Amino acid sequence: MARTGAKQSKPRVHVTHSSSIVESQLVTSARVRAAAKKFPGLISRVEFVYGDDPASLEASLPETDILLLSGTIDLSGLRARAPRLRWIQSCSAGVEKIVPYIPNGVTLTNASGVHGPRGGEYGITAVLMLNSRVPAFVTNQQAARWEQIHTTPLAGKTLVLLGVGAIGAEVARLAKRFGMRVLGVTRSGKAHKSVDRMFRTGQLAQVLPKADFVLSTLPLTPETNGLIGRAQLDLLPRHAGVVNLGRGRVMDYDTLMDKLGKGELSGAVLDVFHEEPLPADSPLWSTPNLIMSPHCAVDDESVYVERCLDIFFGNLKRFLAGRPLENVVNTKLGY
Amino acid sequence: MARTGAKQSKPRVHVTHSSSIVESQLVTSARVRAAAKKFPGLISRVEFVYGDDPASLEASLPETDILLLSGTIDLSGLRARAPRLRWIQSCSAGVEKIVPYIPNGVTLTNASGVHGPRGGEYGITAVLMLNSRVPAFVTNQQAARWEQIHTTPLAGKTLVLLGVGAIGAEVARLAKRFGMRVLGVTRSGKAHKSVDRMFRTGQLAQVLPKADFVLSTLPLTPETNGLIGRAQLDLLPRHAGVVNLGRGRVMDYDTLMDKLGKGELSGAVLDVFHEEPLPADSPLWSTPNLIMSPHCAVDDESVYVERCLDIFFGNLKRFLAGRPLENVVNTKLGY
Repeated sequence: MARTGAKQSKPRVHVTHSSSIVESQLVTSARVRAAAKKFPGLISRVEFVYGDDPASLEASLPETDILLLSGTIDLSGLRARAPRLRWIQSCSAGVEKIVPYIPNGVTLTNASGVHGPRGGEYGITAVLMLNSRVPAFVTNQQAARWEQIHTTPLAGKTLVLLGVGAIGAEVARLAKRFGMRVLGVTRSGKAHKSVDRMFRTGQLAQVLPKADFVLSTLPLTPETNGLIGRAQLDLLPRHAGVVNLGRGRVMDYDTLMDKLGKGELSGAVLDVFHEEPLPADSPLWSTPNLIMSPHCAVDDESVYVERCLDIFFGNLKRFLAGRPLENVVNTKLGY
Repeated sequence: MARTGAKQSKPRVHVTHSSSIVESQLVTSARVRAAAKKFPGLISRVEFVYGDDPASLEASLPETDILLLSGTIDLSGLRARAPRLRWIQSCSAGVEKIVPYIPNGVTLTNASGVHGPRGGEYGITAVLMLNSRVPAFVTNQQAARWEQIHTTPLAGKTLVLLGVGAIGAEVARLAKRFGMRVLGVTRSGKAHKSVDRMFRTGQLAQVLPKADFVLSTLPLTPETNGLIGRAQLDLLPRHAGVVNLGRGRVMDYDTLMDKLGKGELSGAVLDVFHEEPLPADSPLWSTPNLIMSPHCAVDDESVYVERCLDIFFGNLKRFLAGRPLENVVNTKLGY
């Protein structure tokens, strides 16, 4: 990490977040100092600059070596705007909006893993809600309709996980505790301790008909974009419930709405959408048997920034030692 | 069990259910025969009569020794209508509508315990929904309002159980698995293996302020009627969520609506109501931050009748042997 520039002796970390971020998720200097205490001696070896308005960002970028990125900023032409940039740490697990702008030679790391505990809890909550037909209760409640629906316990039913990352693995662990059979679908199909049987993405047609519930935590990549279309949704049993906690564009929501309206699926729980915020005139808002949350249900406000900063400082230690970083994104695969 | 009547050699079991019961919960002769297979030799020692219309019921009652009661029928003047009656087995756990009509010398047994597994699952589902603020998401969805709410995991939060019967105990067991602190309130305050600390009903004022969530499975009795009124609801923290799976009249729903509307409670999940079916003009239907199910969420359609009949046949065996029955209701206490 010998520096050749004369203007500064320490690598510069520019910390940025867009103004749309809620207070609990801001990467403030106080939070950076608090997190740095777990990594003695590290913080003094770099220079931190905080600048969230475009002008101060542009003034700082030419001297920036490391970008700690929270929220979405304009990343176009980054090579010219930040010629010294070597590494971008994203505070998001999904990086589909960042990947296209990463210059050659710049390493992108993400926050994959931060959503595990809380995301797993919301995932099993969604499956439990679908099993109890809560989306149907909610639809009936809006119509002041008293219509009893009797169900059966979760044990023995089949959960198909699309993606088995931090959230998927935690959902799998909790689902096993409830006695479920858990099937997983990933690119590699590699075995996982909490999953009864793994499949490769190409085997979707084989696994979807087995699903009582299907839960996606897939990132948005060229391979996953539109992966769950009409043909795939048609493979699900009519009694199946659908959860999406990953990225909206993985799934064809027009077909999903159609099938929910016709009773060809029993319910759905969605936290992510093709366009966010979801436009006020979207027909999703009033789709029956559907419960939606506004892309927040997997975030743990108490530890989110802390966990992101743990990943960052662990990586900073490696960066300064010239060792390989963790959570490195394969920019070709997109995750 | 020697019989003195000359007209019949075997005790008569009259099986009845009201027409409002859904098919999956009917005590049919086929289901009785299926359940009897677990109790060899028992079914031939009694006479089963099925009569669900008032006329055939009245014709049978004078010769009836045992009433297997599913649903609500007119029980007034039972001493005169069924002079030989010795025992009523209810297929419901809650018996507040039956207790007032039990003649002296007739034993009432209930189906307490049948709702444990499925009821426990719905109980923890309700707590998880409240923790994720799903009732608020649902309210915002109806208004097409994109408003992120970030929460924290369940672990370490406090669940107060009002009543620790079959459902409450199963909720406690599952809540402990999620790392919750579980406090229980019962008449006796007797220790329970899945509950961290037990309180007596008289200690409500001490325990309610500790609740992140309060879940009632209390039956309706003279002691529980109106137990959770404004004074008690006012003791809950503003962020608390409320669940009622027991009986509606235990809780003051007018105050509950008022507090949900004002944001003085974070949400509620109700399966039971003061009047059922809930009248179409009830303001509960449109109360914000409230999710309702029509008194069905704790019923397991796959095993409900089977479990009731298991209790019945176990008791029938005892009855014929002159031994004490199980699940006997204390008609003074009402449960």
